[in-house]
Amino acid sequence: MLDRKNGENDVTIKILYCGICHSDLHSVKNGWQNSVYPIVPGIYRRCSHEIVGVVTEVGGKVGRFKLGDHAGVDCMVNSCRSWHECARHHENYCPGMIMTCNATDADGTVTYGGYSDSIVVEEHFAVKFPAGMPLDRSAPLLCAGITVYSPMKRFGLDVPGKHIEVVGLGGLGHVAVKFGKAFGAKVTVISTSPSKRQEAVERLGANAFLVSKDPDEMKGAWGTMDGIINTVSAAHDVTPWLFLLKTSGQMIMVGAPLKPLEIYAFPLLLGGKSIVGSIIGGMKETQEMIDFAGLVAE
Amino acid sequence: MLDRKNGENDVTIKILYCGICHSDLHSVKNGWQNSVYPIVPGIYRRCSHEIVGVVTEVGGKVGRFKLGDHAGVDCMVNSCRSWHECARHHENYCPGMIMTCNATDADGTVTYGGYSDSIVVEEHFAVKFPAGMPLDRSAPLLCAGITVYSPMKRFGLDVPGKHIEVVGLGGLGHVAVKFGKAFGAKVTVISTSPSKRQEAVERLGANAFLVSKDPDEMKGAWGTMDGIINTVSAAHDVTPWLFLLKTSGQMIMVGAPLKPLEIYAFPLLLGGKSIVGSIIGGMKETQEMIDFAGLVAE
Repeated sequence: MLDRKNGENDVTIKILYCGICHSDLHSVKNGWQNSVYPIVPGIYRRCSHEIVGVVTEVGGKVGRFKLGDHAGVDCMVNSCRSWHECARHHENYCPGMIMTCNATDADGTVTYGGYSDSIVVEEHFAVKFPAGMPLDRSAPLLCAGITVYSPMKRFGLDVPGKHIEVVGLGGLGHVAVKFGKAFGAKVTVISTSPSKRQEAVERLGANAFLVSKDPDEMKGAWGTMDGIINTVSAAHDVTPWLFLLKTSGQMIMVGAPLKPLEIYAFPLLLGGKSIVGSIIGGMKETQEMIDFAGLVAE
Repeated sequence: MLDRKNGENDVTIKILYCGICHSDLHSVKNGWQNSVYPIVPGIYRRCSHEIVGVVTEVGGKVGRFKLGDHAGVDCMVNSCRSWHECARHHENYCPGMIMTCNATDADGTVTYGGYSDSIVVEEHFAVKFPAGMPLDRSAPLLCAGITVYSPMKRFGLDVPGKHIEVVGLGGLGHVAVKFGKAFGAKVTVISTSPSKRQEAVERLGANAFLVSKDPDEMKGAWGTMDGIINTVSAAHDVTPWLFLLKTSGQMIMVGAPLKPLEIYAFPLLLGGKSIVGSIIGGMKETQEMIDFAGLVAE
């Protein structure tokens, strides 16, 4: 954001790394039918929002950051700050939330995202990284990480003994497996084919792997999951997965298919089950998530 | 249940009134595609489960009931009693739950429902009615009442200041309005046409009425509802109603359409919203519901 000066509540971050999120791909391909062309990823109308670097300037009223600190910016750089959801630290659900790229902030400056040399952001929307945490591998936590961490906390899936199913083993899914294991939960990965079994179990440490096209494997797991993190971003049939949930369990949608899902009422009714949407997280829990990731990465 | 003798844990209830539930109609019309014909409502394969009457016999180990008490039976007469959901008083979600009609109980006796002279039921599955509560008007509470009461309690919609939307003003809907008002909540009824406005507002005391086909009325109510009680039992488009929910709000499905609903992920994601299923309630909260109804009816 070269056209924004560092104000008294702002920090300037020299950008060292920036993740490429699947939402960048959605923007390029107009997957959500809201892209404004021309888009040249990395150059023009950048949609990047997994930004990490080093603090090079701090405003006079900044308290949490000093020069040289490692810091990051996720998907938003502002919110109305007065709405009840902002007061509850849910800036991610504020109707006045300002995205990190392709948006106009309250002061009239345009947000350009993280494919840049530096970014100026209000302290409230900057996240502090522990000194020893490797920044290159941390950047994706600022979107993929908080997207799965937030609902896992909201629905109490962050405790030992819980059984979490992760559907889809892409950017979101692999972080969900890592967080689930770090929470002490049992994690099962589900995929349409067995080709990802090795990555899920051997590389990421999932406890189990299910092939969704194998009816016997699926039936054997009926009623065993406390929650499902559904990361699939294409239209798909979720009915078989609802049967895997325990009573009162939640299937949490963090992928964003444009086409509607077909949902049968009976599998929801007969177990008091839910389908829940969730998108990133508030700034307080984003900081909490980075602190937690720093601890378990040590 | 004439072929069941009154055991030491049982009560026998002389049936005075029995409601006709919409599920009786579903059974007659094979609406859920699981009817076993021939069905002759009131005579053969009875599906009636809103039963109230007077206790005429009690077993030696029965503690809560004495002869002459007013008592009722709802949709179930048994559960496994050992599963964790039974231990949490959620017998309604027990896989071993025995329905009040058209089922075979653990002792081999057949359950015949409430279009009968009397019913024998284990004390645990009988509900006690306050002495002064009018039984003729109380019967439907044992299905319609608990069906809306249970999720309203589960999702914290039972406190003053909450704003509840009730979709559909049939058997379930009109009880939902009455409970919502009794909780001190603000209740808005929504219907496809204005023809039910008078009944909703003047007769049942709803605070407001919305016509779902009026785009201006609908848009004016965006983001204002804490929860929606959706009682519609036909396939329908729920997307416009999701916009009415506040952030983190729940649309609670208590109607049971057989055909799937088309659900778009974005309205769920952008507000952390949920679609939840719910079916009747446990015995503990069914008793609590009747006690509450008795208090507010005085």
